[in-house]
Amino acid sequence: MDDIKLAKVENVRMIDRYNTKNPTVGTLYLTATHLIFVEPDSNKETWILHMHIASIEKLPLSTTGSPLLIRCKTFLSVTFVVPKDSECHDVYTSLIKLFQPVSINKLYCFNYQPAKDDFPKNAGWDFFKLEAEFKHMLVPNENWTLCSMNEKYELCDTYPRQIYVPKEATTLMLISSSRFRSKGRLPALTYLHNNKASICRCSQPLSGFSARCLEDEQMLEAIRKTNPNNDYMFVVDTRPRINAMANRAAGKGYENEAFYENIKFHFLGIENIHVQRASLQKVLEACEQKSPTMSTFLNALESSGWLKHIRSILDTSSFIANAVDKGVSVVVHCSDGWDRTAQVCSLAQLMLNPYYRTIKGFQALIEKDWLAFGHKFSERCGHIQTDAREVSPIFTQFLDCTWQLMSQRSESFEFNERFLLILHDHVHSCQFGTFVGNCEKDRLDLKLAERTFSLWGYMSNHLNEYINPLYKPNVDESIKANLAPQCIKFWRGMYSRFESGIHPREPLGDLLLDSKEHCNSLEDHVQHLTKRIASFKNYISKSAKKLQDATTTTTTKVSKEPTTNEINDNKYNYDKKLSELSAADDDHPLKASNMSFANLSLNAEQTSPQALTEEISSVALDWKSMRNVTTCSCSTPFDQFSKKTHCWRCGEIFCERCIDKNVALPGHDSGKAVPVCRGCFRQMQKQSP
Amino acid sequence: MDDIKLAKVENVRMIDRYNTKNPTVGTLYLTATHLIFVEPDSNKETWILHMHIASIEKLPLSTTGSPLLIRCKTFLSVTFVVPKDSECHDVYTSLIKLFQPVSINKLYCFNYQPAKDDFPKNAGWDFFKLEAEFKHMLVPNENWTLCSMNEKYELCDTYPRQIYVPKEATTLMLISSSRFRSKGRLPALTYLHNNKASICRCSQPLSGFSARCLEDEQMLEAIRKTNPNNDYMFVVDTRPRINAMANRAAGKGYENEAFYENIKFHFLGIENIHVQRASLQKVLEACEQKSPTMSTFLNALESSGWLKHIRSILDTSSFIANAVDKGVSVVVHCSDGWDRTAQVCSLAQLMLNPYYRTIKGFQALIEKDWLAFGHKFSERCGHIQTDAREVSPIFTQFLDCTWQLMSQRSESFEFNERFLLILHDHVHSCQFGTFVGNCEKDRLDLKLAERTFSLWGYMSNHLNEYINPLYKPNVDESIKANLAPQCIKFWRGMYSRFESGIHPREPLGDLLLDSKEHCNSLEDHVQHLTKRIASFKNYISKSAKKLQDATTTTTTKVSKEPTTNEINDNKYNYDKKLSELSAADDDHPLKASNMSFANLSLNAEQTSPQALTEEISSVALDWKSMRNVTTCSCSTPFDQFSKKTHCWRCGEIFCERCIDKNVALPGHDSGKAVPVCRGCFRQMQKQSP
Repeated sequence: MDDIKLAKVENVRMIDRYNTKNPTVGTLYLTATHLIFVEPDSNKETWILHMHIASIEKLPLSTTGSPLLIRCKTFLSVTFVVPKDSECHDVYTSLIKLFQPVSINKLYCFNYQPAKDDFPKNAGWDFFKLEAEFKHMLVPNENWTLCSMNEKYELCDTYPRQIYVPKEATTLMLISSSRFRSKGRLPALTYLHNNKASICRCSQPLSGFSARCLEDEQMLEAIRKTNPNNDYMFVVDTRPRINAMANRAAGKGYENEAFYENIKFHFLGIENIHVQRASLQKVLEACEQKSPTMSTFLNALESSGWLKHIRSILDTSSFIANAVDKGVSVVVHCSDGWDRTAQVCSLAQLMLNPYYRTIKGFQALIEKDWLAFGHKFSERCGHIQTDAREVSPIFTQFLDCTWQLMSQRSESFEFNERFLLILHDHVHSCQFGTFVGNCEKDRLDLKLAERTFSLWGYMSNHLNEYINPLYKPNVDESIKANLAPQCIKFWRGMYSRFESGIHPREPLGDLLLDSKEHCNSLEDHVQHLTKRIASFKNYISKSAKKLQDATTTTTTKVSKEPTTNEINDNKYNYDKKLSELSAADDDHPLKASNMSFANLSLNAEQTSPQALTEEISSVALDWKSMRNVTTCSCSTPFDQFSKKTHCWRCGEIFCERCIDKNVALPGHDSGKAVPVCRGCFRQMQKQSP
Repeated sequence: MDDIKLAKVENVRMIDRYNTKNPTVGTLYLTATHLIFVEPDSNKETWILHMHIASIEKLPLSTTGSPLLIRCKTFLSVTFVVPKDSECHDVYTSLIKLFQPVSINKLYCFNYQPAKDDFPKNAGWDFFKLEAEFKHMLVPNENWTLCSMNEKYELCDTYPRQIYVPKEATTLMLISSSRFRSKGRLPALTYLHNNKASICRCSQPLSGFSARCLEDEQMLEAIRKTNPNNDYMFVVDTRPRINAMANRAAGKGYENEAFYENIKFHFLGIENIHVQRASLQKVLEACEQKSPTMSTFLNALESSGWLKHIRSILDTSSFIANAVDKGVSVVVHCSDGWDRTAQVCSLAQLMLNPYYRTIKGFQALIEKDWLAFGHKFSERCGHIQTDAREVSPIFTQFLDCTWQLMSQRSESFEFNERFLLILHDHVHSCQFGTFVGNCEKDRLDLKLAERTFSLWGYMSNHLNEYINPLYKPNVDESIKANLAPQCIKFWRGMYSRFESGIHPREPLGDLLLDSKEHCNSLEDHVQHLTKRIASFKNYISKSAKKLQDATTTTTTKVSKEPTTNEINDNKYNYDKKLSELSAADDDHPLKASNMSFANLSLNAEQTSPQALTEEISSVALDWKSMRNVTTCSCSTPFDQFSKKTHCWRCGEIFCERCIDKNVALPGHDSGKAVPVCRGCFRQMQKQSP
């Protein structure tokens, strides 16, 4: 890292809350972007990105120094005890300035530079186009059309430019409905199922105690009519009824059932952002109790309400998904339609459509329902200094619900838990521009696509870290959540992930994936060897024939004609490159024979002995065990979150960074490019100059 | 099964508590040993062993019939609705008679006959000898001796005949100490650590309010002295102090600290069997709530105290393990020393010694600390009609604690979750004699080793179902439990295992194990092919030489001498059997050559072409995916608990029963016997008559 060192403090003791008895002593470095703690004995480094810091607290002076408690958005909680109080104060004040910038233009993404050659700046910014996502759903079509009225964000500035509305919706309906809805967030299509049932999203109507808007009523009727299979549809108000009622005093509220025909209204009781923020706070406190008993923990977990809220979000999402699955369209809103609405619309789609359960589909879902339709990431994640009451773990809950579904239906998801954790951490890191700003317009104004890197570009370079080995594409069209309370689990992998000794040292899924890759390599090698043997057999039979001919006719002529391979199909010519290898190894036993193979010129023996040796030795049979490997050869330490990768040629273990080459191995039949380490890559290049 | 049909009832509806909306209609059969429900449409069968039934309840008559609620010790809960009330009553009264026999001689084990050829009756009964287990610990030695006074169970009839005591203990001490302890359960060695610290176990002293026994005091002093490294030891009373005090009124109680020198006493607060029974009952009720909310579930889970009790047992076990690890001996007792004492002594050993974390070691631990030292399985598991107040999930808790440790330290255990579930279910099934009776003497009196089969014999035939693929032998000498409340989990795999949709369809561990075996097979095959190629190369070089010789000297002589393989070591002669294979395939391209391979008589070509084909085709490259395989070819349905096994020759999937042959495959280099299906086995026998 080329971080500028702002401060360096020696003899700092680090106490993590999971290991309070044995603090480690080391040096604390403060750089422009990170706080780094280095333990000189073990060379272990703890890096804390400033952007990941949630809070910094100076605790009362102790006998050993001045403690600084740092809580991170990644749920790491760590205390540094600095010997001198003045030094501690310096670090504290520096961090206070650094961890939450005032201006959005000071976010990490505007300075971040990936290691060179990693990926270009534009990679990822064009992966998802709203138009293409709707085309997947065969929109526009005879019922739905692209509305051009938001091209300049005039209808709704937190919506995307492209919004899809019923073909029947008139300009007047759109404008009026937009004016009748909080923040102008009129009903617009977000998902069309293959049975014509759809999910539309909007914000609450500005109905107050008695106001109505005929055009809004017509708008909902137009939406209902896009689905000819049912003569009614649902409006899901995700809020508890009492909250919706309270909103009427502010001139907002909910639809008056009397005015909207053929619509069934449902309140579904998800609490607001303040309740959710407080709930997460209580969960974290539950995990941090000093001398907890089982009862105090379980009571604290219960009274935090966290699992209740998760279940409630899943319940509402299930309601929507079930309705759509049965052919009933749903219009969803909460208050402004960008928190609870984003959660349940995206989760319902996740349940309904296997596409969204792929890596690409899940990213597209986030692009559509969170980024394009607007979610206040800057405020909710506390990217910049903001009203603390605006912070809320809404996106974290979306990931938590996804994880609950994943745990219940592991074969239906292409991605693994690490994928969700990476997403979570980078939504908060601001290392990439992807989640900066609150809506499409913000991101255009900030010119993020030109000024910053995209998380999607970064992730596309690390796809193999996110694969769930249990995934079976299309095993289920739609999936259902089991909402029994004993099936809703506390996600230790997220909130307790720095708790030592409760996570397996090696994720089982990674081991399975690795073992499967090993199988693939060996299978490929067997295919190759089998063909090699077949051609040898062929050669021998020819050669034996010749030997006989020679011994009976005393002809010295050696056939120069290439023979066809009688046993195998003739795809077997992958090694054009290999046959060009020099056969300079004079010690080789085969070289000692009086007749060189090249002279034989038979199909089986176009390859030099050295090339044959290279073929056989190019595929690692034993792959080194992943257990007890603590560092990569580049001395990057492995932790429970890092993906270890085998070099397919030597079978050693490397970090993702060290395995950045994919080449075809001579011992593989398929000619498929596979991961090799840098050392092997150099060796292979030497062998084929 | 040769079950006698006692009753057959048609049109019965089965409602499981996890799927109340779609009851299935089928036929209910009552046999002498099982209740069987057959769904005619799907051919699905639900078997309930009478011995697994925990309770039967006739619920109020409904419009569709008479419901019979059956709760099982396996935590299955199911309701059968029988159309006619009289039929329901018949089934009910029959089951009442069958599910809990009055006499121990009516238990299932005395009638059970395994499928023939499965394993002989004596298999397993001699797997564990107490003497051998103590020899593992190098006992007897200079400090510990075998006491012969219990040969006829005169000292203590619930102890094993062989008990190990300090060499210094006199006959008087042993007799007096035994008389001073509840049920005669005097302090005896159960575990000696490699640092001379030991775990001894006993029952509470009959101290009442003031009684003392000098010899018992001497006995504990003698135990202390066996460990010269520390001048004190611990006495762990696993009970809450209040319970121990209450016992004094009945002339029992706890040691008076004033009388015992150099001993530190600790009360550790594990509740008694009645509290544990009520706790499990409450957990099950929590899972069975009709319309549960997250709060009612979590509150019910908390107020059940189940996790608190589990944590408390782990806590006490950790205390003992830590003391022993640090070189301090511990004497453990509760009241009678056969419930809590059995739990914590065995769990402490599990933490201390990697041997007990192997399959064999865990079984030995159960043999020693549960079977030999006595645990009232008949009463605690309700094998026979007994006082309901004697039933308690003490052994289940031991398994639960083991599972908690396993989840935290997955690489330290040779066995998997299935191993624990199988143990749990067979402790209750009484299919095997192993857990019948309450102590060694009971089992000898019942002549179980002659009259019944052993669970250990059965399990030794199914070892590959119990392997934890993450296991790394000796990675840790002793392991510690993380007792943070968020690390103590509700064991859904045990108590909610029949809950649908929350368990992965395929256990990840099984898939990993399978994938690793696939790798092994391919590696072995590659080794073989590589050697085959080397010998081909060798042959070609000889042959080329000969061709050259022939063409220059016109000699027709073909060398008959076997040549040595210059490239590989000459282990390559595994295929003696193969070379005897007939080479009758006249269509084979190689047969068309004028010179037969046999005539060449070279090392590389002692094998006929057909044998070579067999070699290459004998190893399955692709293994069929485990997903979506619902039945074995023998039509046994697979469920989430069954282990699926691949045939290494054809790559198809079979149940454990169908893969009962292990043979060496010609395409493997190692010659190791590997699992093949019956079809492949027959084919291979045909090929090598």
